[in-house]
Amino acid sequence: MSSRARGLLFIVSAPSGTGKTTLVEQLVERIPQLRMSRSYTSRPARKAEIDGVDYNFVTRERFEAMIAAGQFLEWAPVFDNLYGTSAADTEAMLASGDDVVLVIDVQGARKVRARGIENSAVFVMPPSKQVLEARLRLRGTDSEEQIQRRLQVAREEVASFAEYDFMVVNDELAAAVDRLHSIIVAERARLRRMRGVAESIVRTFHD
Amino acid sequence: MSSRARGLLFIVSAPSGTGKTTLVEQLVERIPQLRMSRSYTSRPARKAEIDGVDYNFVTRERFEAMIAAGQFLEWAPVFDNLYGTSAADTEAMLASGDDVVLVIDVQGARKVRARGIENSAVFVMPPSKQVLEARLRLRGTDSEEQIQRRLQVAREEVASFAEYDFMVVNDELAAAVDRLHSIIVAERARLRRMRGVAESIVRTFHD
Repeated sequence: MSSRARGLLFIVSAPSGTGKTTLVEQLVERIPQLRMSRSYTSRPARKAEIDGVDYNFVTRERFEAMIAAGQFLEWAPVFDNLYGTSAADTEAMLASGDDVVLVIDVQGARKVRARGIENSAVFVMPPSKQVLEARLRLRGTDSEEQIQRRLQVAREEVASFAEYDFMVVNDELAAAVDRLHSIIVAERARLRRMRGVAESIVRTFHD
Repeated sequence: MSSRARGLLFIVSAPSGTGKTTLVEQLVERIPQLRMSRSYTSRPARKAEIDGVDYNFVTRERFEAMIAAGQFLEWAPVFDNLYGTSAADTEAMLASGDDVVLVIDVQGARKVRARGIENSAVFVMPPSKQVLEARLRLRGTDSEEQIQRRLQVAREEVASFAEYDFMVVNDELAAAVDRLHSIIVAERARLRRMRGVAESIVRTFHD
């Protein structure tokens, strides 16, 4: 199929520590014409980070001007910094026929939905609180207080699963990537996406 | 997941010669807990056919009594014989948690929908009339008249694609089986199917 139909917008949300970044990175590597949206941030770039690759780094003033101009599909403060998804960048990718995946939190997903933008939203769940806690400890990057705080946030987030179209349990990385992969392939086979292809096949029966 | 949620009902329709039987046989072999429905027929068993394996063979009188008793999800005459899908057999498989795939035509799919039974319906398309015609000739089992008749029926059938949820082009068998496979996996990840699993995970955050 070399159909140049408009791309599909996917949202992936998951509590921190569920491994959503790794999951989606593997997914995008594996699936042609699926792209991750690059976030804007007011945070300064860290040493290893490259502007336009890891993030679009902008000043706080520029970020606030973009908010005022309604240029974000969704944005949120994280500690002292602002993070957001550009509506124009996303629209350009979709218009080109690529599918786009936004890795955003429950609040961000609500903002995208509130704009009435068609999307397929996947909630990635840890297998249990106990497994999530064990993973956070294994990572060894957080203090006990931070771990408790993340678990508290996760508890609030998992309660929102019913706002999503799909639910994937990240019990084992490869299996979870496979399930996400299947969701992308299946959504691409949905009638709304395939209508143009179907109509062109039907026409061959009338030549 | 060893969730014993109710199974999902899949409908697969395709014009004759599109290869739907091969497709679905490979699919069922590959996916655990996915079963094909076994049709009832009033036609006598052929030599190699086994009652209860290939079909449930019943007398015409018995078939007509089952129609009168509303025991078919869908049924249809094909030449002089009657073929149908048992509502009770399908329900038993779904209730056990298995997913069921019905390989039925456009008319049969309409009857299932008319009963208000939740289902995910996939229309399998040949890549074009020309490819379908070439496949029918290659098969070498039909007369020219039969081929023309099949193409005429196919032309009517492909026009109904918009009644389906998904569309898969059978351009290459393995790729088409992959796409059907993805649709099954994705539908299993739908919220309505995963609700029980999700709720049990959420509970671990409240223990």
